[in-house]
Formats: sequence, C-alpha cells, structure tokens
Amino acid sequence: MSIESSVLAGIHAVKHALDAGGDIHELMVEKGKSHPRLNELIHLAKKSGIRVTFVPKEALVRLSEGVPHQGVVARLSAQQSAPQLSFEQWIEELDVAEAPLVLLLDQVTDPHNLGACVRTAEAAGCAAVIVPKDHAADVHSPVVAKSACGALSRLSVMRVTNLSRTIQALQKAGYWTVGLAGEADDSIYDARLNGPTAVVMGSEDKGMRRLVRESCDQLIKIPMPGSVESLNVSVATGVALFEINRQRS
Amino acid sequence: MSIESSVLAGIHAVKHALDAGGDIHELMVEKGKSHPRLNELIHLAKKSGIRVTFVPKEALVRLSEGVPHQGVVARLSAQQSAPQLSFEQWIEELDVAEAPLVLLLDQVTDPHNLGACVRTAEAAGCAAVIVPKDHAADVHSPVVAKSACGALSRLSVMRVTNLSRTIQALQKAGYWTVGLAGEADDSIYDARLNGPTAVVMGSEDKGMRRLVRESCDQLIKIPMPGSVESLNVSVATGVALFEINRQRS
Repeated sequence: MSIESSVLAGIHAVKHALDAGGDIHELMVEKGKSHPRLNELIHLAKKSGIRVTFVPKEALVRLSEGVPHQGVVARLSAQQSAPQLSFEQWIEELDVAEAPLVLLLDQVTDPHNLGACVRTAEAAGCAAVIVPKDHAADVHSPVVAKSACGALSRLSVMRVTNLSRTIQALQKAGYWTVGLAGEADDSIYDARLNGPTAVVMGSEDKGMRRLVRESCDQLIKIPMPGSVESLNVSVATGVALFEINRQRS
Repeated sequence: MSIESSVLAGIHAVKHALDAGGDIHELMVEKGKSHPRLNELIHLAKKSGIRVTFVPKEALVRLSEGVPHQGVVARLSAQQSAPQLSFEQWIEELDVAEAPLVLLLDQVTDPHNLGACVRTAEAAGCAAVIVPKDHAADVHSPVVAKSACGALSRLSVMRVTNLSRTIQALQKAGYWTVGLAGEADDSIYDARLNGPTAVVMGSEDKGMRRLVRESCDQLIKIPMPGSVESLNVSVATGVALFEINRQRS
C-alpha cells in the first residue's frame, strides 16, 4: 500500500484545496504573472501560513506535466491525508460499527476518470479509494490530481497488489462488497447497503476483470431508462455512492 | 431553437453510436490503417447499410478538431434525432401526463462537461437538454460529441435565447422547475419530483446566473458528507436525474 502525494495545477484545483483546508505545503506562482484570481490564491495561502514562492514558468510546466497550470501549482505535503498504514492495519483501525463506505476501482486507466472518481468518493464521504497497482492510472499523475480537485489531499488512495484478495479481506472484516455491472439482475434500489460497504466499479470499456467480479458478494445495476448502456464511470460512481448515502440517511 | 448535427471521433464513441442505432450518415476510416476494432466498426456499419469511405489521415484530423480520432470518424445525419420543432411546438407536443424530465444547463462552457451531461441525460431518459445560445459550450464541437458518446444522435439539444423565459414557459406548461444549488435549504430527497420536471444545473465555477436561479420554483441540494463542496457538473446531474427516476419507479 502507498498513500500518494502529488501536486495540484490550475487556479480552480488549487482554490478548491485551499478552501477545503487541504494540506498544502507550498504555493508556487509564475514569476511576473498577475491576475486577480492568482492574487486571491496568494492572499488565501498567506492567510493560512502556506509558503508562497515565485518561480519561472518552466518550473510550473515541468511540475504540472502538461496539465494547464494557469500560473499556479500547489505542492501537497508528503504526510498529507491518512497516516501511512498498511492495508491490513488500515482495515483494522476502521470501525465497522460506523458502516464505512469504500470505493474500489478496477481497470480505470484513464487519469481524468480516476481523478473524477476520487473527487466523487470524497464528496460522498468514502473512507478510502482502493486501486490495483496494475490495471489503474498512475495516482501520482498531475492529471489525476487536477481532476480530483484537491480530494487527494483529504482521502487515502491505496494501491494493492491483488484486488480480489483485497475484496476477500474486506469481506472477512465484515464488508458487503457489491460490484456495479450493467448486466446484473439486482437493482441498486433493492440492495441493502446500510452496513460497512465496498463498492467495486470497472472501467466503461472493459468492466471488472472476471476474478474481481466473481469475488463480489453481489452484482447490482443502476436501472437506465435511456438507450445508452453505460454512464461515464465517475457519474455511475456518483449515482451509486449517493444512493447508498440516501439509504443510510 | 436548433437541433444540432455533428461528427463523432474515436473507436469508443463510434462503436457506442453504432450499437445504439444512432443515425450515422457515413463512416470515414483512415486509409491504410488496419486494426481489429476498426475492422469491427466497418463490419457493423456495412451490416447497417451505412456508407464506409477511406480517407487520408489529414481529413480525419480536420474533421475531429483535435479529438483523438484513432482512425475513424462518423458523420451524423443532419436530420438526426428529434424533428425540427420550435421550442414552443416541442413543448406543446410533449405529453405532460407522461411526466417528462428535461435538463437545463446554464453557464456550462466546458465542452467535456456539456457532452458528459448530455450522455447522462440520455441514459436517464430525459426528453431534451436545453442550453442558452450564449453562456454554453458550442454544441457542434467534436469534443462535445465525443464526451456525449453518441447521445447527441438520440437526444435533442435545444438552444434558446433566454433561459429564464424558457423556464417560465416550462412552468406555464405544468413543469416543476428545480435548480440544483449547494446552498439550498431543501434536500433533493425530500422534494416531490414525480410530475413533469425541469432540472436546472449551473456550472461548477459560477453556478446559475441570478435571474435563472430566481426563476426556479425550488432550489434543492444533494446532501454531501464529504468536505468537497461541489461535484463535477455531470456527476451532480447524474445523481439528481437518477434520484428523480428512483422516486418515480
């Protein structure tokens, strides 16, 4: 397992992280650039005691790896988000009596989609996002950080070697694991998702791998009135997680 | 009002449109390129009687306007989707007894987001998506078409001059119009959305314009347990539309 640290690029992503009290180590602003929204970020950062440095444009281009930086990059603290526990420690520390909600993503290789799923999971109050070391986008990528809109600094993204074994460990710890699949017989609206729950999503193209799918306790679907068979994975994630929240409220 | 026509670029988007019986006028394939998934598209198109032409790469690059085309572009028929009615005719033709669901987007200027919202609206069984002529991304853009994954060929996207007046016309026709806003007092789970309903979404950055917001019958929010205040607009659209479907089922 590894808890990821990263950089955030772009005014919107950095503003989000600052507003939400994300653990920002340093704000790097393009030297000589002036813009009201940049000045607002500098002001916010200084108010929170965050170091602000002014650097050449080239440094921002390099750090943001192709993500439009708009003159600003935030470096997140290395010890951001959850403490560095192993998956086994982490699962033991979580109180199942509080019915944690965990999101597992299989084969989500598009960094925009991974980031959007992390953002959605954070908004839905998930305890963690778990992805396999292979068959997933690189969590360190600035594209993921940007799409996550700062959520990476507040939510653990854990990488595991074997997702099927992780599902079995979650089941042993008392989690009901449900896989979202368009061809499932059961509707999410009829499933009982009040206890500790792990939701497994596959990619739009390839779904879950066979072993991952077969490890789930139940396959459920979101009934769709339209003719498009699949939603974007982050949209499907949102519909599923917020439906679970609704059932619990 | 105008019903939009467009091109689709990329294997995934074209495959979606072919599978869903989207109204494709012509399939354009890169000359000299061979790939099993491309061959599958050619086979599918021919089986459906769609003309297949082989063109130089440059033609695809030009048509797809920067969207990765992966060797294939589909041209959608000009008379695709709904017939060319005026908004007034359209609203009159819809049977309110069937409780249509309509999505209105204000200030959604990012083409990826607009496309993703259209895709989500189609999957949720919306009767139409309505956007203002200004304060919206260009519906003709290939980026919108790609993000919509073929939904543009099955769902009317109407552009109107004045969104507030459109809301008033919908209200006069019997629609309950709800605006999604994070600061609203009412939860979507307590709202009564069983009748003809128009859902108004603003952009993540700027929300709805003041007049649009004030025109709504009710402002509602999606309760969020996490610390990120906003979801991506297409995710929020999905959560809202599928919650309305659940209430109706």
